[in-house]
Amino acid sequence: QEKGAKQIDTFYYQKPLIPEIKQKLLSNINVIANMQSSLRNEFADGEYTRGRFIMNQFRLEIKGKIHDKVYFRFRDRYTRNTMPQSEDNMSSSTDLAYIQVQATGKLNFSIGKLCADWGGIEFDLNPIDIYEYSDIIENSDNFLLGMGIGIQASENHSFSFQALNSRTRTFQEIYGTIPGITESRFPLAGVANWRGKMFGGKWQTIWSYSIFKEARSNYMHYLALGNQLDFGRFQLAYDFKYSKEELDRKGIVTGFKPDTGGDRFAAQDVAYLSHWVKLDYLVLPKLNLSFVGFMDVASWKGNPDPDKDRKLRTGWGFIPTVEYFPFKELNLKFFANYVGRVYNYTQYAKDVLGQKNYNTGVVSLGFIAPLHVL
Amino acid sequence: QEKGAKQIDTFYYQKPLIPEIKQKLLSNINVIANMQSSLRNEFADGEYTRGRFIMNQFRLEIKGKIHDKVYFRFRDRYTRNTMPQSEDNMSSSTDLAYIQVQATGKLNFSIGKLCADWGGIEFDLNPIDIYEYSDIIENSDNFLLGMGIGIQASENHSFSFQALNSRTRTFQEIYGTIPGITESRFPLAGVANWRGKMFGGKWQTIWSYSIFKEARSNYMHYLALGNQLDFGRFQLAYDFKYSKEELDRKGIVTGFKPDTGGDRFAAQDVAYLSHWVKLDYLVLPKLNLSFVGFMDVASWKGNPDPDKDRKLRTGWGFIPTVEYFPFKELNLKFFANYVGRVYNYTQYAKDVLGQKNYNTGVVSLGFIAPLHVL
Amino acid sequence: QEKGAKQIDTFYYQKPLIPEIKQKLLSNINVIANMQSSLRNEFADGEYTRGRFIMNQFRLEIKGKIHDKVYFRFRDRYTRNTMPQSEDNMSSSTDLAYIQVQATGKLNFSIGKLCADWGGIEFDLNPIDIYEYSDIIENSDNFLLGMGIGIQASENHSFSFQALNSRTRTFQEIYGTIPGITESRFPLAGVANWRGKMFGGKWQTIWSYSIFKEARSNYMHYLALGNQLDFGRFQLAYDFKYSKEELDRKGIVTGFKPDTGGDRFAAQDVAYLSHWVKLDYLVLPKLNLSFVGFMDVASWKGNPDPDKDRKLRTGWGFIPTVEYFPFKELNLKFFANYVGRVYNYTQYAKDVLGQKNYNTGVVSLGFIAPLHVL
Repeated sequence: QEKGAKQIDTFYYQKPLIPEIKQKLLSNINVIANMQSSLRNEFADGEYTRGRFIMNQFRLEIKGKIHDKVYFRFRDRYTRNTMPQSEDNMSSSTDLAYIQVQATGKLNFSIGKLCADWGGIEFDLNPIDIYEYSDIIENSDNFLLGMGIGIQASENHSFSFQALNSRTRTFQEIYGTIPGITESRFPLAGVANWRGKMFGGKWQTIWSYSIFKEARSNYMHYLALGNQLDFGRFQLAYDFKYSKEELDRKGIVTGFKPDTGGDRFAAQDVAYLSHWVKLDYLVLPKLNLSFVGFMDVASWKGNPDPDKDRKLRTGWGFIPTVEYFPFKELNLKFFANYVGRVYNYTQYAKDVLGQKNYNTGVVSLGFIAPLHVL
Repeated sequence: QEKGAKQIDTFYYQKPLIPEIKQKLLSNINVIANMQSSLRNEFADGEYTRGRFIMNQFRLEIKGKIHDKVYFRFRDRYTRNTMPQSEDNMSSSTDLAYIQVQATGKLNFSIGKLCADWGGIEFDLNPIDIYEYSDIIENSDNFLLGMGIGIQASENHSFSFQALNSRTRTFQEIYGTIPGITESRFPLAGVANWRGKMFGGKWQTIWSYSIFKEARSNYMHYLALGNQLDFGRFQLAYDFKYSKEELDRKGIVTGFKPDTGGDRFAAQDVAYLSHWVKLDYLVLPKLNLSFVGFMDVASWKGNPDPDKDRKLRTGWGFIPTVEYFPFKELNLKFFANYVGRVYNYTQYAKDVLGQKNYNTGVVSLGFIAPLHVL
Repeated sequence: QEKGAKQIDTFYYQKPLIPEIKQKLLSNINVIANMQSSLRNEFADGEYTRGRFIMNQFRLEIKGKIHDKVYFRFRDRYTRNTMPQSEDNMSSSTDLAYIQVQATGKLNFSIGKLCADWGGIEFDLNPIDIYEYSDIIENSDNFLLGMGIGIQASENHSFSFQALNSRTRTFQEIYGTIPGITESRFPLAGVANWRGKMFGGKWQTIWSYSIFKEARSNYMHYLALGNQLDFGRFQLAYDFKYSKEELDRKGIVTGFKPDTGGDRFAAQDVAYLSHWVKLDYLVLPKLNLSFVGFMDVASWKGNPDPDKDRKLRTGWGFIPTVEYFPFKELNLKFFANYVGRVYNYTQYAKDVLGQKNYNTGVVSLGFIAPLHVL
């Protein structure tokens, strides 16, 4: 305290201890522990198979404005192998590690390990809010190195364009050697996305089209049309997703191929189609009822068998959930739910490929929270 | 600063930069780097075998109240494989990742990856304060996914009950296939714990009983009775621990079985017993003398040999240490110590199982600190 | 707010929410995301071989004074295997994890996982500012467990001495078994370093001499003489480095040995010499032109072939770079550069060892930032 200072009863007034630049950072940066943990009971074809406590999700996140024009985001999982990947050199546990620079009021660009900006409400949600992903999302590389541009075209409409690696690992690691297929020198992916708000925000869209170069003259096309309808306490979301893959990137159809002893090469010319719907009804301020249903269809147009059926499998998912929020000011919920999956194969897949119908069920009791720790 | 503002010499008085909710978090959350590093010299049967600098412990921790009624704790090691485990899906490097909700003034419950709340002073100490664990703790899974309830029965007595996975990895990964043993569907563990203070805190207890389901009709029972006596500058702790294992979970007895070429199945019906004592004498405010001694007994009741001795090995540990705290206001200590281990086998273990007595010694010079970095 | 309080318009004046000790930590501790990410195009012998987006560097850092006399630093990579190492027990992804205690105004000592304090401007720079390391640095263990002493001899001259492990992994893991070589019990390294400022700081030096015990009676000697000349907007750095290795630690010469089917033992009695120069010209406050050039010579004195040439390879590196800093107050730069490498073998290495000259090139466009997130 300065000599002769009077009527000064705290050191604050006198001299702030934390420098102003630090105070700005401390105000703008959030450190978040994204958690989903539960007591999980598993069933297969109606029989109890396994029970355990499980950490479904633990993703530590640091994000915020580190400068008037620069935003930073980093998110890393503690439920995943940390090995740096052969294509992008980043730990596979790291979802996000990028900066976003605000070039003008309407234009920003991003660089680093990004969330691929594809459409669909399902993919847009925080992963901790998902109890089970539909097939396409579950089997995709969703976090990729690259660059992006964002354009805020008007108050209600924005567009983004990304150039990304089409994968995190090399062709060799994912597919091995496939006769007749040559690895591309630059396995590039392009993503175009539209986010719109219409009817005063009652209808919101996240639509995207993406193209991936998987190998020379070998592409994957992915269309995702996400729609969110807001009726106050009742919310309805619907996603349409379609992925056409000249080389089977999801690996589901490849997994149906009979094991003939040698290498099991990736199937060629496959397609995945998905309908996904989510209903939420906020019964009470602290009580939400949710239902998620989805249908995934796997087809193999490129099957060399002349007697083939293109369609091989239809998978169903249905997830009724009760969610309870004990605290008004903290985004922490407890949940109880059932995740049912039914896999139905076509007659061809059963007879020729030897597949069998089956179903699984999971009963869970747990909690979900994006805990702000700083 | 606003125009016309007078007699305002800092921006603090004017407008706090950090929002109040952030200030609360910043006050309540601690970020701690738990470190133990040393210059380590190893001896075996009296001969110098190896010298090196080593990071014995580095555990980064985030903990604190994130809400009036919710406490969060996360701790992760940088001295351990980070692979997510097959039973609980959490990185094996992560000790703790849980929330604790204060339901009422006397009742809380926890969920996530927890510290198994078993008794004993040894296990209750911060791992950085341990120079060498006794056999039972050293060979246990101490951090398990699950749920717990805590009850503050009175000012001096609290109780806790936990339901946990009995391991972090699957039965298959730990034991392989054992003839006659069927993996249990839900490998559950239950822990009951009493923490008491008596005689004005001069005698403190941490007592627990735990039961683990290892396989169908196959259990492990673990009793731990920890006692701390406080005589001011002189402190005395004594733990009694006893683990009865129908399937050898610690693996010590299994390791004594002769290698007969094929699979070495886990020994059945074994027991481990441990006495552990710790004496601390604070000679000067900055100087502490400590002595830790323990005795571990390994027995094999289930040995099929009709001529067996149950008892196979008695292991001794003794650790005299000088600890120096250079700073009054910082919990940082430098230490010099000796860790002696003596392993004595019974005549039966020597003659029939081919074991040999041996001893090891470690001379260390290092530092220990739970460094509060935020 | 207290009852009857007047003229108090913020809670700050009344009662600071953040305790003073926390405010000090928040002021002194920095959390930094060190990033280098780019669009990378690779060429070999003039032919385009591979393009991709890549995270070259992501190192999260926590550092600062945690006490008037104690400084802490921790830095961990997300582009590297996290496995704890067999010699020092620390994750290989962790660069730094140490404390530094200020014993007197002129004397400090450090303990933990340290940056080996060897000389050279190249090694002293933040790794994110390096586009390609010269051979010696690229193939060294630069972060080692140990202890160090620092002496501030005068305003312009300081000295440091370190005792370190000579590696992070065991001899066995690095070299395997080599006939005639016995692993040393304590693979110790000693480093002596001088940092000087002369001519008013216009000439700065970082010179060091290091000695490593690799095996019994087997040493490595490393001399590094770094010099920085400051001409205002023009900066010039020159490093001389020389490493004499009784057992080939870098592995470059060993890699030249013909594959004869069996184990490829480490070459003995090799030497690496390096000249490295860096020129920086700050054309405009936001625009820097940089040129890095280096020459690495690999020699094998211990080659048992009586007709040998000692010198085997001269490698060249040249890196012209344009760096643009868009923000005055944020250390963030975008860069475009070319990394050229030319490897020329001596006639002996070509004829007898079967090596061939080659060159590689990398064209990159990316950004670099030590992002202060807290």
